[in-house]
Amino acid sequence: MARIAFIGLGIMGSPMAVHLQNAGHDVVGYNPSPEKTRPLVDAGGTAAESTADAVKDAEVIAVMVPDSPDVEDVLINGIFGNAPEGALIIDFSSIRPDVTTALAKQAIERGYRILDAPVSGGEAGAVNAKLSIMVGGSAEDFAEVEDIFTTVGKTVVHVGPNGAGQTVKAANQLIVATNIQAVAEALIFLEAYGVDTEAALTVLGGGLAGSAALEQKKQNMLTRSFEPGFRIDLHHKDMGIVTSAAREAGVVLPVGALMAQLMASARANGDGGLDHSGLLRGVERLSGQTPA
Amino acid sequence: MARIAFIGLGIMGSPMAVHLQNAGHDVVGYNPSPEKTRPLVDAGGTAAESTADAVKDAEVIAVMVPDSPDVEDVLINGIFGNAPEGALIIDFSSIRPDVTTALAKQAIERGYRILDAPVSGGEAGAVNAKLSIMVGGSAEDFAEVEDIFTTVGKTVVHVGPNGAGQTVKAANQLIVATNIQAVAEALIFLEAYGVDTEAALTVLGGGLAGSAALEQKKQNMLTRSFEPGFRIDLHHKDMGIVTSAAREAGVVLPVGALMAQLMASARANGDGGLDHSGLLRGVERLSGQTPA
Repeated sequence: MARIAFIGLGIMGSPMAVHLQNAGHDVVGYNPSPEKTRPLVDAGGTAAESTADAVKDAEVIAVMVPDSPDVEDVLINGIFGNAPEGALIIDFSSIRPDVTTALAKQAIERGYRILDAPVSGGEAGAVNAKLSIMVGGSAEDFAEVEDIFTTVGKTVVHVGPNGAGQTVKAANQLIVATNIQAVAEALIFLEAYGVDTEAALTVLGGGLAGSAALEQKKQNMLTRSFEPGFRIDLHHKDMGIVTSAAREAGVVLPVGALMAQLMASARANGDGGLDHSGLLRGVERLSGQTPA
Repeated sequence: MARIAFIGLGIMGSPMAVHLQNAGHDVVGYNPSPEKTRPLVDAGGTAAESTADAVKDAEVIAVMVPDSPDVEDVLINGIFGNAPEGALIIDFSSIRPDVTTALAKQAIERGYRILDAPVSGGEAGAVNAKLSIMVGGSAEDFAEVEDIFTTVGKTVVHVGPNGAGQTVKAANQLIVATNIQAVAEALIFLEAYGVDTEAALTVLGGGLAGSAALEQKKQNMLTRSFEPGFRIDLHHKDMGIVTSAAREAGVVLPVGALMAQLMASARANGDGGLDHSGLLRGVERLSGQTPA
């Protein structure tokens, strides 16, 4: 069992930290809004006053914050110089692969070890400890903390060196956006022809058109209820990551590029706070319908 | 048990006819190339010399032919006037919804009953009797032959009036093409970054990016082996169906339209005879790579 600092106790980080505490680790959590530390403290963990305070005796430091600048801030201003030498940083956040690679270089130069370990599966995956986790970094570091990953996740795979986890997460977001859009276009098409859409989505889900996106998002779309879930604002950030990483690598993603535009359009039309299944509203607008 | 005529004993029709014969029905089959009747005859069925000959005593007439003109030819020149009044025609072919609707009107005027029942699941689904079947027509006619559907299929759903089955099949092909393309773009992106792609596709398949297309097509893509399967030529036909049906209904499908273009491009580059997972080669070409 390890002394773990957990930085970022939001929707995702809080249940993950609690799972680790319940598994017997000694977890010290920090969150800018201190009331978020409550579930961890209730589970027997400790609340810290700052990142520096949380990491000072840590063997492992988990980070789960929203975006690239947040990770930069936590590492550079909170962890580096305050955590013990040799501590292993696990960055669960989904950020730009190039930022991850640059931060990993700095962390290693300062005597730390680091893995990028973005997750997929959303709030339900975090609560049920069924996250998919795509890990970049050294195989030795991965092996050392594999039990930590399997405590919070179900499908855990080491995919390559530092940055590779973020690259796979970027690919994940590309596929998810596209598969949601495919269901949205199919549904608006079927509605226009007066088909029994609930029956249709059942039979579509049973064949080669079946997908996790169809299963998990069809109720949102059928009932036009787009409570997040995963917000279009965040997916918009991720489509920026994947399209710019593709540009840098000279890879052309025709549908990915269009998806980035459709996600931007959803946001431009005020849907940024909705679940990404709200892409359906964009198909309605394009087809001259007024979204409900 | 019913006297069934089965018109079209190709890759899909032949195993379906054999399943029906094995289930105790009395199946008379016809195929333009007569050697294709062999598996049905070996199972105890009968080979006919023509469609007219096959349908003359039929209670149920199954049709499984490639395209809209083939179905028109079989119905107008083979079934109408030759089959007994009241016979129930089941068209398993995937064709244009508007052609289906027009043919259904004619069939009913001539005293026949008719269901459109296109299938999804490919050769493996036909051989293993695990097809998804989307049925359009009257609920009474559907109920009467539901046992025939469950003999050849696993997920069988009545989705609406005549034409609705074809409309759902068109939506199926839209989603399948899009989900394959999403995996193809993700894979070329991941390869460019030197990620362990086999591990990456495993973790992607475990989360919200998971799909039947990813599971069933990832080996084709990883190994660049594009034996059909389902040919790009046929999927190109289907993208024409869905985009033109969408136009007529005033529905705008931004990704569907792009997919129709990418499928056309695959064909224009000589890939029409490959499995639709060969869409990967289009992403390679766009990215300046020479497909293997």
